[in-house]
Amino acid sequence: MPDESHRIREVRVTPVAFTDLPLLNTVGVHEPFALRAIVELETDSGLTGLGETYGDAGHLDRLRIAAAELTGVDVWHVNEIARRIRVALATDRSTGGHGMSGMVTGSSTADRVLSPFEVACLDIQGKAVGRPVSDLLGGAVRDRVDYSAYLFYKWAGHPGAEDDSWGAALDPAQLVAQAGRMIGEYGFSAIKLKGGVFAPEAEIEAILELRKAFPDHPLRIDPNGAWSVETSIRVGQRLDGVLEYLEDPTTGIEGMAAVAREVPMPLATNMCVVAFDHVEPAVKADAVQVVLSDHHFWGGLDRSRTLAGICDTFGLGLSMHSNSHLGISLAAMTHLAAATPNLTYACDTHWPWKDTADDVIVPGALTFEDGAVAVPTSPGLGVELDHDALARLHEQYLSCGIRERDDTGYYRRFEPDFDPTAPRW
Amino acid sequence: MPDESHRIREVRVTPVAFTDLPLLNTVGVHEPFALRAIVELETDSGLTGLGETYGDAGHLDRLRIAAAELTGVDVWHVNEIARRIRVALATDRSTGGHGMSGMVTGSSTADRVLSPFEVACLDIQGKAVGRPVSDLLGGAVRDRVDYSAYLFYKWAGHPGAEDDSWGAALDPAQLVAQAGRMIGEYGFSAIKLKGGVFAPEAEIEAILELRKAFPDHPLRIDPNGAWSVETSIRVGQRLDGVLEYLEDPTTGIEGMAAVAREVPMPLATNMCVVAFDHVEPAVKADAVQVVLSDHHFWGGLDRSRTLAGICDTFGLGLSMHSNSHLGISLAAMTHLAAATPNLTYACDTHWPWKDTADDVIVPGALTFEDGAVAVPTSPGLGVELDHDALARLHEQYLSCGIRERDDTGYYRRFEPDFDPTAPRW
Repeated sequence: MPDESHRIREVRVTPVAFTDLPLLNTVGVHEPFALRAIVELETDSGLTGLGETYGDAGHLDRLRIAAAELTGVDVWHVNEIARRIRVALATDRSTGGHGMSGMVTGSSTADRVLSPFEVACLDIQGKAVGRPVSDLLGGAVRDRVDYSAYLFYKWAGHPGAEDDSWGAALDPAQLVAQAGRMIGEYGFSAIKLKGGVFAPEAEIEAILELRKAFPDHPLRIDPNGAWSVETSIRVGQRLDGVLEYLEDPTTGIEGMAAVAREVPMPLATNMCVVAFDHVEPAVKADAVQVVLSDHHFWGGLDRSRTLAGICDTFGLGLSMHSNSHLGISLAAMTHLAAATPNLTYACDTHWPWKDTADDVIVPGALTFEDGAVAVPTSPGLGVELDHDALARLHEQYLSCGIRERDDTGYYRRFEPDFDPTAPRW
Repeated sequence: MPDESHRIREVRVTPVAFTDLPLLNTVGVHEPFALRAIVELETDSGLTGLGETYGDAGHLDRLRIAAAELTGVDVWHVNEIARRIRVALATDRSTGGHGMSGMVTGSSTADRVLSPFEVACLDIQGKAVGRPVSDLLGGAVRDRVDYSAYLFYKWAGHPGAEDDSWGAALDPAQLVAQAGRMIGEYGFSAIKLKGGVFAPEAEIEAILELRKAFPDHPLRIDPNGAWSVETSIRVGQRLDGVLEYLEDPTTGIEGMAAVAREVPMPLATNMCVVAFDHVEPAVKADAVQVVLSDHHFWGGLDRSRTLAGICDTFGLGLSMHSNSHLGISLAAMTHLAAATPNLTYACDTHWPWKDTADDVIVPGALTFEDGAVAVPTSPGLGVELDHDALARLHEQYLSCGIRERDDTGYYRRFEPDFDPTAPRW
């Protein structure tokens, strides 16, 4: 085959919004719309590639700063793309727009910006080669990727709107019902509960009820750092033998290390280790035993494989974090997980919370069976942009009025005295 | 482009020997021939790929065990190739054959065996895509890779043979002359001295003479762990401000950590950190500041990039180690170094010690200019097998009688009481 050039000719960054449900977490509640940005790369060879990332205004600004620097770079030269992005952002002093509503703030800005462009480059590389992205990452070691049932406490519906089909989940029985429906529809074989919403005793009770109802499903709870060290230790000891891992019970490497010394189960994190700079202090403090990777903030799929290699080298477990996302991200997550031998836990996904009609990709490429997504085998990511849907979700972005994810602000509209300062318990 | 299969149809492993000079090190002296094994992969699509590794008998046996398992695997599925090799070698209990004559013994057997197959897969991937291997590693960040002038104490010629063109290097003046010729011919801008041969005072003197003669060349010395902790500290303190880094002055992570605490320059290693298992203890002990990577024992180019990511993450410098090698290895080293942003030191190479007529590749693809090799831009590794030369070097292997590198045994033929036990000083 001749050496064909695949230089970036055009970069489009399109913010979109999709409907979201009132899912509760320790900093507030999901707004009626979740934001994402869709990145499209087009090469001089006529190939297109897709990436997906956060849609918050600050992040959008930085994506556009980066996009302006990428014309003319070949999609195989990701090192050069990363360099240009670092240089372009070196003088950026803006804050916010990280898309994670106060729950992950210390991740690397350059890596967060690089990610969707890298994924889009891999999409194009795969199309150029006629190979799925997983092949560009060393090849799939599994043909299906397991995801977990991601349970949320939630309101019955957004205030002022009708109840959604999931209804309220404000006590253990309602959570068990939520799990039953989600597992029934998707076949998940592991369960994660987003905690930090009610007092720890109530959440312990919920976990124990889930254990009774689903005796064979590994269970996790993630209060997003809502607990003090003492509370975390108490909960961890109480749930001995019940949890697969305990995720971010408290904030900070020091606090997590203090908890890790006293609880029987592994501690997992996507809060205190969210960038390469955090790995060394965490390892030296023995603060965590499982890292939840996330290619959206670790700099894309290749750098997430480096993280996987680090976890393997240092005896850390590896799982995968999720924010509310669309199909491009699900495809990227699935390729990455498939090609990462030591990613042995079921990955997180918010997928079931998304209206199936709300996406930017042509339906049908990604389906759940027995809780798993089959790894796409067609060239690139294996998903195709639906331009009409993109336009519709972009219109929805323009009209929804939300420009920064703000779970706390939305919650305060209904409970003005709400104070999410951690530790809450 | 259609999705074409590139399944491995045939694997050939050919041991070769090429003439070597009587280079001295702390465990003995190079024999008249150095051994390598050339790996050729051929796919059902008619593409061929090349790899190069150690040629010692034990390693050859393991390469053949691995080779028998690879038929039918697609060259993009390196994860699967690695898995098959690990399984195939799991029951292997043989020792030796690591190709490094007692100087590196703790590297991972599976990674050592994987390496040439992985490189050959990347060579084929590159040819299939019409891209240099560097593009498969994220793209070259430099178009030329700097190598260092690798000085050796040496005898004038092999005993019983005529003096070679380099002649003796047994004192500082002769080393300076050696450096002068090597830098004159290749243009190297950094100098490494293989030490551990004479008493430390003599080697300190040699370094100081080199400093005088080449005031602007970064200098390194590598006694291969020949020194005690006390001696290492003494030498390190004496060479304050003179050395770019001090390589493996003493053996073991504990010893290196003790030296590191007392000397002013970074310590480098390709002896106490030679596998992923060694990274955590070395990091926790602050034993080394620079890791000399080597794709031949770190499991190939992709896993060497993981090592690079680990070094970047933990604030370790990264350089590159070399054994006596042929052109396939030089090409692989050059692609890897080019695509590794944090590989900032000039790489080691034994290249100048090799008879230019002794190689298995068609001449001309790799040339030194100003101490650097231009990164090949043609598809794959950018080197082509010379089948006649391969046959000739294989005949040389068959006739030379050497089956395991044994610098100590060879030295003892001339000095029967030679004892290489470290620390020698």
